[in-house]
Amino acid sequence: MNYRLDMDIQDRKEIIDNISFLAQKQDIPKLKNIIIDIHPADLADIMRELDDTERDLLFSLLDPETASDVVVELDEVTRDHLIQDMEEKRLTEIVDEMDSNDATDVVADLPDELAQKVLSQIDSKDRAEVEKLIVHDEETAGGIMAMEFVAVQEDQTVDDAIQEIRQKAQEVEDVYNVYAIDRDGKLVGVVSLKKLLLSNPRMHIHDIMNTDVISVTVEEDQEHVANIVRKYDLVSVPVVDNQNRLVGRITVDDIVDVLQEEATEDLQRMAGIVDEEVLQETSALRISRFRLPWLLVAFVGENISALVMHHFQATINQILAMAFFIPLIMAMGGNSGSQSAMIVVRSIALAEGGTSNTLERILRELRVALLNGIIIGLLLFGITQFWMNDPFFGLLIAFALLFVIVNAAILGSLVPYILNRLHFDPAIATGPFISTANDVLGLFIYLGLATIYMNWAH
Amino acid sequence: MNYRLDMDIQDRKEIIDNISFLAQKQDIPKLKNIIIDIHPADLADIMRELDDTERDLLFSLLDPETASDVVVELDEVTRDHLIQDMEEKRLTEIVDEMDSNDATDVVADLPDELAQKVLSQIDSKDRAEVEKLIVHDEETAGGIMAMEFVAVQEDQTVDDAIQEIRQKAQEVEDVYNVYAIDRDGKLVGVVSLKKLLLSNPRMHIHDIMNTDVISVTVEEDQEHVANIVRKYDLVSVPVVDNQNRLVGRITVDDIVDVLQEEATEDLQRMAGIVDEEVLQETSALRISRFRLPWLLVAFVGENISALVMHHFQATINQILAMAFFIPLIMAMGGNSGSQSAMIVVRSIALAEGGTSNTLERILRELRVALLNGIIIGLLLFGITQFWMNDPFFGLLIAFALLFVIVNAAILGSLVPYILNRLHFDPAIATGPFISTANDVLGLFIYLGLATIYMNWAH
Repeated sequence: MNYRLDMDIQDRKEIIDNISFLAQKQDIPKLKNIIIDIHPADLADIMRELDDTERDLLFSLLDPETASDVVVELDEVTRDHLIQDMEEKRLTEIVDEMDSNDATDVVADLPDELAQKVLSQIDSKDRAEVEKLIVHDEETAGGIMAMEFVAVQEDQTVDDAIQEIRQKAQEVEDVYNVYAIDRDGKLVGVVSLKKLLLSNPRMHIHDIMNTDVISVTVEEDQEHVANIVRKYDLVSVPVVDNQNRLVGRITVDDIVDVLQEEATEDLQRMAGIVDEEVLQETSALRISRFRLPWLLVAFVGENISALVMHHFQATINQILAMAFFIPLIMAMGGNSGSQSAMIVVRSIALAEGGTSNTLERILRELRVALLNGIIIGLLLFGITQFWMNDPFFGLLIAFALLFVIVNAAILGSLVPYILNRLHFDPAIATGPFISTANDVLGLFIYLGLATIYMNWAH
Repeated sequence: MNYRLDMDIQDRKEIIDNISFLAQKQDIPKLKNIIIDIHPADLADIMRELDDTERDLLFSLLDPETASDVVVELDEVTRDHLIQDMEEKRLTEIVDEMDSNDATDVVADLPDELAQKVLSQIDSKDRAEVEKLIVHDEETAGGIMAMEFVAVQEDQTVDDAIQEIRQKAQEVEDVYNVYAIDRDGKLVGVVSLKKLLLSNPRMHIHDIMNTDVISVTVEEDQEHVANIVRKYDLVSVPVVDNQNRLVGRITVDDIVDVLQEEATEDLQRMAGIVDEEVLQETSALRISRFRLPWLLVAFVGENISALVMHHFQATINQILAMAFFIPLIMAMGGNSGSQSAMIVVRSIALAEGGTSNTLERILRELRVALLNGIIIGLLLFGITQFWMNDPFFGLLIAFALLFVIVNAAILGSLVPYILNRLHFDPAIATGPFISTANDVLGLFIYLGLATIYMNWAH
């Protein structure tokens, strides 16, 4: 058997068309023949593109193990559709095949009654694990860990460890390390499979184990866990309770998903989307719920902009050309501000720099803003001269631009630190929040300076 | 020995102050005593915060192996500073300790002459490997793979494989899989260490190997490799040439770095920063080079906005209140457009959806924009009524807003697909490019509609 892997888009389209066609013709043997060569992760991709009937038919052809692998790989939206149409017995069968953490995720998403039914019918050991895991917050180490791992007493031998791996071979699919615990179940060391393979079978674990074992506690935030895995180049990390007792294991594939999720979240915050909008979501009403809140924040803010302009009406009336440059001034402020905010947010997210550098970072942003502001200010001066030949107006507008850019950079670099200190997500600062604040302040600075100038000129 | 891991910020600050103090006092024994307990990845973090003299002193106290681990973990900016001050002999010693891919990265960044000197002095096997790796584009599989891996002939036995691991134990630090090759060096299978550990030592590799081996070719883009590792939950992936001959291996820790890098790059594109601005960069001049280009694009675009307003001068003069809502109209267009763009860019980056969905996606964005546009339009109508009590003006402005929001959503969702088709990075569409285009078009729509209305009203 050889999977056709990561098909390119053309291939995938052909396969999907083919499957659609066969599903409509109810040609079960041919369908089975096609899907046997496809990796569960690709099957999940394909399912996403089929309509409900085709998807249900295709899914019904999978053996429980493959079906369980496919469900784990599916996006939330498609998974919910699929599970809604599924019989209880089939669902139980599939959950039974899953690792404890995946089973917990699926059960947690089910309606209460169905969840209870499924739980009561799965293997009792699995049920106990799911019940232990389900209490943890989804975004903590406890929420992403699995209870499948291999641990031995530190006074056991290499041979004992190998026997333990053999016994758990079915249950724990990927083993990279064996954890060593003491009589109280406390984590005291780690042995890589490579070390185990190269050691004398009669050696004791405590003689070969690495005691520099990096672990996380159950309540640790998943983003922090991801940063540890990334920083120390781990493939799996043991999870301990407050007494340092080994309770679970997180593997790097789940960390990769966390990193992806956090990056998407940051990008969405930056675009002004609250919570995580699932990319496969199709309901305009539900999507609107993710996006409208920040649009409304910006709406309120920009009404203040309108009030500011109303306030400076006399000034604008006197030199209408002043109004022409409002979009420019605001865009320059907005763009510089979001450049600064983004760099600071990323520094905080990757925990690079540390807060000892806050002032240094802000000063750095200030220098950059001064430099860019002077360059663009000079350009703007040139353009207004060409257009209006009024050096005072040119100086005024160039100076206002510089002022707005510097102000935006200070706001953009300061606000993320403040949000972080107040335990808000600093990424909010990259979104409509800061750009709206920049608009209002920028307008105020621009029109305020213009008014001072005109009072002075006349 | 037990590392103090991932210290919190307070701890780190104390340690840094302590090291600074001891470095100034040149108290070598105490310094050595402190650093022995610190993980190389944390040492790298600490080095970043020290001044040049302190850093050089601290670094000189490290044995070559630790020094090499620290250099690998350092950010580019700090690494360049450190290497500049380093003697050729020490540098050679450190490069000699590195894995082939890390050694290649360091050598590639050196001035030509120094690179040649270092290469001529390191171990000849290492030199051959670096020379093989250095030809690959940095952002391809070949650019991130290492030449340290364990491979055996498929007709060898489990015991042979274990002997091979033993022989390469020093060179290949992390072994998760052993690759099986045929007589021509072609990749034919993979055996996990777990499988090896549980198999009879006299079994042949071809009897226990998994032939569903997922591999990538050397020229594959690193982002594509990362998507494969993420999708199929791999801890390492073998790299093959065009004849399917095994030439290298990429481990998941490097993939995690790639994902982080790509996410940062997307975020930076979104904020209007060209190339990757290294977070530790301190020179305002160099930072400005990353940020000025997009500011200038926006500058040119917003000058067109000024021209548009100039063109509609008569309209604005007639109802100055029209100008008051320009920031609002533009901000609403900008924000809706970037929400759409961001979701589409993310769908493309994660290869979720496939281009078969392009039209569906754009229609979805259109529906969301219509919904949000109607809601905000109604609010705006209410506010203008409260303010001016002119229902025709209110209708005009609300309708213009809806028009601008819908236009922004179409632009925001369409442009990333077009850029992707033209082989540009779609993430450009999330930055100043699209927001500037939205500003110009939005103004044109808004003032155009207003002019039609006024011509009709009078």
